[in-house]
Amino acid sequence: MRVTELRVTPVAFRDPPLLSCGGLHQPFALRTVIELVTDEGLIGLGETYGSSRMRECLAAIAPVVVGLDPFDLHDLLFRLRPCLAPDLERTNILAPSSLGHKFLARVYGALEVACLDLQGKMLDLPVSALLGGAVRQSVPYSAYLFYKFGAHEDQPYEPDAWGEVLTPDALVAEARTMIADHGFRSIKLKGGVLEPELEIETVRLLRREFPDHPLRIDPNLGWTVATSIRVSQALDGLLEYLEDPAGGLEASAEVARQVSMPIATNMLVTTFADLPPAIRCEAVGVVLADHHYWGGLRASLNLAAVCATWNLGLSMHSNSHLGISLAAMTHLASVVPNLDYACDTHYPWQCEDVIEGGRFAFADGALAVPTGPGLGVELDRDALERLHLQFLDCRIRDRDDRVGMRRRQPTWSPELPRF
Amino acid sequence: MRVTELRVTPVAFRDPPLLSCGGLHQPFALRTVIELVTDEGLIGLGETYGSSRMRECLAAIAPVVVGLDPFDLHDLLFRLRPCLAPDLERTNILAPSSLGHKFLARVYGALEVACLDLQGKMLDLPVSALLGGAVRQSVPYSAYLFYKFGAHEDQPYEPDAWGEVLTPDALVAEARTMIADHGFRSIKLKGGVLEPELEIETVRLLRREFPDHPLRIDPNLGWTVATSIRVSQALDGLLEYLEDPAGGLEASAEVARQVSMPIATNMLVTTFADLPPAIRCEAVGVVLADHHYWGGLRASLNLAAVCATWNLGLSMHSNSHLGISLAAMTHLASVVPNLDYACDTHYPWQCEDVIEGGRFAFADGALAVPTGPGLGVELDRDALERLHLQFLDCRIRDRDDRVGMRRRQPTWSPELPRF
Repeated sequence: MRVTELRVTPVAFRDPPLLSCGGLHQPFALRTVIELVTDEGLIGLGETYGSSRMRECLAAIAPVVVGLDPFDLHDLLFRLRPCLAPDLERTNILAPSSLGHKFLARVYGALEVACLDLQGKMLDLPVSALLGGAVRQSVPYSAYLFYKFGAHEDQPYEPDAWGEVLTPDALVAEARTMIADHGFRSIKLKGGVLEPELEIETVRLLRREFPDHPLRIDPNLGWTVATSIRVSQALDGLLEYLEDPAGGLEASAEVARQVSMPIATNMLVTTFADLPPAIRCEAVGVVLADHHYWGGLRASLNLAAVCATWNLGLSMHSNSHLGISLAAMTHLASVVPNLDYACDTHYPWQCEDVIEGGRFAFADGALAVPTGPGLGVELDRDALERLHLQFLDCRIRDRDDRVGMRRRQPTWSPELPRF
Repeated sequence: MRVTELRVTPVAFRDPPLLSCGGLHQPFALRTVIELVTDEGLIGLGETYGSSRMRECLAAIAPVVVGLDPFDLHDLLFRLRPCLAPDLERTNILAPSSLGHKFLARVYGALEVACLDLQGKMLDLPVSALLGGAVRQSVPYSAYLFYKFGAHEDQPYEPDAWGEVLTPDALVAEARTMIADHGFRSIKLKGGVLEPELEIETVRLLRREFPDHPLRIDPNLGWTVATSIRVSQALDGLLEYLEDPAGGLEASAEVARQVSMPIATNMLVTTFADLPPAIRCEAVGVVLADHHYWGGLRASLNLAAVCATWNLGLSMHSNSHLGISLAAMTHLASVVPNLDYACDTHYPWQCEDVIEGGRFAFADGALAVPTGPGLGVELDRDALERLHLQFLDCRIRDRDDRVGMRRRQPTWSPELPRF
């Protein structure tokens, strides 16, 4: 079996006005849908970032993957490397975790998932079986709570039903709805948005309302070390982990020394090269995996092995995404014995998808591992076309969370730390 | 596809009187041949240690693996764990690298290889494809040189053609023959046997005779720190690495600080739990993988990822073994991009095997990666029966390199360091 074509389809889907300390989600989130077509007529699916750089890169490498054996993942890497050579050469000597290498991992990871989908379809095996077999038949996800505005400026479409969420009480109401709808048994709060005291109050209210739900908060490096310690002390005993409180490994290590809960990260440790220094200075206790930037599903298993070896916890990060990514995340999460926490997902915030049969549904906050061949999902061509047209129409070409914030608050700055 | 039977066949094969600081190889080396039989009539092969404990354990777990899906390697681990619970419970709290865990990795690894063989046979794919695709079509091995006696006491069979090798000149003659026979392009010398000055002389003669062959020496922790440093200084610039010179991580770190070549190990780092402390104290620069004790082929890939992440070199260890192990080693070595050195193998010292079609042949010191389904080897039932009868007859039930030495030198002690 050989690859005969790489099809790349940029898509855009509605995204609510969610807040983080990076700014405001734009009205449309962008992703790229990947199809690896083979001479046997099978199609392997992948989903990755919707950046212009990713689209350009995938267009440039399309000829390079023609002829690839989808089982030969090393060959995939060898084929990609020369295409990214300028990036790699510019950056790899001084910093192996540099942008060039990060981008290679992203491109490779996107195509690796499509190759694994092809392998599974050819062998009539789910991706979980290719990865060693599921250790859990359903994967728990967390309720991912955001402070948010009621509607996007200009209202390119009807406002979502969630309404404005800018107070602790409104956030708890959001949690109530999301948990009623999907049954989540863990809660993640996107922090770094309101004054820390209000976010402390939010967590306390969440704890009162959901006494048995593990809680976590993620201010995206928006706090100083002092704020991180102050918030942590106020929330002592309430959090399963504190995610990315303060910027830099040294700062994170300082926070880790002073607080009781583990420090988690998906921002300070994003490549294998980041692991040795982070482990050396004990900056983090939990790593959030994300196959989209760790280099695919098998590389994520290597990360899991590192975490098991160094007694680091393991959780899973998410960006706004569609069902192909959710299927891949679920297969990965199903096979990692030491995935210690419910996974993050933005999926409940979306209302559109490109997969056949409609959107995935959570049961008791968990997703059954797809049992069909490969990822277990197929494209709905009409939906793909619709979201592609939406991409063409929406005129957003790169995610920029600063734009919407500045329209509302012209003096708003993304500078960190915020508090 | 489900496993219906685990067949375990102990075998013994002729082994020359090779010397190490652990003593003398016995006249017969022991291994255990594993067959996982499935309901579809496929048979997955594995080869592992020939210890009585391994035989007992495999006999005890035979009922447990009936019903196993050979793709579900996590299920394999879950099935094995309770069988080894007494070992694990006794040891895991105080030392995660303890014997119980080490033994579990050995048993699991033996069966994992047989499962991968089954997967490959079912899917008509070589194991290398299941592991991500070969990055090299042939795997270089090193000439593994030993000082040796001319014959075993009692001569249970005709002495080998190598004769006695107890001087630097004789060792160089051995190297000449082995390299003429197999074309090896790297040389490993088993050290810790003669006085260090004689081993230094041996390496210098080897360098003179083979100016372009990378050289390494392995005294199996037989030297003090002072001896290790003295030998290293004498051999400065001649060795690609120095393997296991002195016992203990601290001693190894001390040697590493004082010498120019990297320190390699297959004795100080043998489990994942050994990696963090070894890395922390910079005790070793090269890890020798061995899927037989690292927990199989996929776990060895995790080890390779750790080595890549921490900039450790990677090489491969061997015990006396037959063709099934050699096939598995070759598939593994073929898919690891960062396997930085020629692999070790005792194979040229053996003259018997259990595989169909006769023994593997090296070309230019390398072995072509088998391309047939699975491991690419099948059992020669007559040969298996012959080596099994040899096992029954030879009365050796556990490897004990001290026995032969004590018959020749009654005061001989295996105590380390020797020099």
